[in-house]
Amino acid sequence: MDARNLADLLGRFDDLWSPKKIAELNDYDVKLVKVLGDFVWHSHADTDELFLVLDGVLTVRLRDRDVTLRAGELFVVPRGVEHCPHADEPTSVLLLEPRGVVNTGDAGGDLTATVQTLD
Amino acid sequence: MDARNLADLLGRFDDLWSPKKIAELNDYDVKLVKVLGDFVWHSHADTDELFLVLDGVLTVRLRDRDVTLRAGELFVVPRGVEHCPHADEPTSVLLLEPRGVVNTGDAGGDLTATVQTLD
Repeated sequence: MDARNLADLLGRFDDLWSPKKIAELNDYDVKLVKVLGDFVWHSHADTDELFLVLDGVLTVRLRDRDVTLRAGELFVVPRGVEHCPHADEPTSVLLLEPRGVVNTGDAGGDLTATVQTLD
Repeated sequence: MDARNLADLLGRFDDLWSPKKIAELNDYDVKLVKVLGDFVWHSHADTDELFLVLDGVLTVRLRDRDVTLRAGELFVVPRGVEHCPHADEPTSVLLLEPRGVVNTGDAGGDLTATVQTLD
């Protein structure tokens, strides 16, 4: 693998809520995703999920509070905790979680995405 | 856990080559480290290691080439691959690897650090 430039990689796609794999770390995948609007409420029973905002503003809605993340801020949603990502403006996020985690978790539905790899 | 602001956290320490844990993701730790000058050649037999540069310039020397990382660039050193981080200017890096990984890997020596946690 060579160095991966996050800005360059973000320039290579525009689709929303569709994570792109950019690197592997053991059995984890590093992914980039662009988001805008509402995702779906869901949880991941077996894993935590890391969000690092690269630009824009991401709100991670939890059942008891909202966590607002700006560029350079990260948050880990613990396993089993329901969350609903939301963005009022175009927002780019780095995600880290074990390989094979489905973006919509236990919820499924139309926003369920197949992860593409950006070589 | 609350949102973690990387710039704020970087403002809380100055020591070099001494990773600070800022979040947990399953059995992985997210760490910040400030570096300048040469580290030691080492490898980690059992794990890959992710470097994401936040500011400055990091050179990850490998035996067959150098990988240069600027802000917003990441690189994963595969398990078992010898590497020697180096920085010509003050540089801040986000590290991700399984909990318990020792910074100097198989090399040991004076730069071996105990990981402190930034609450």
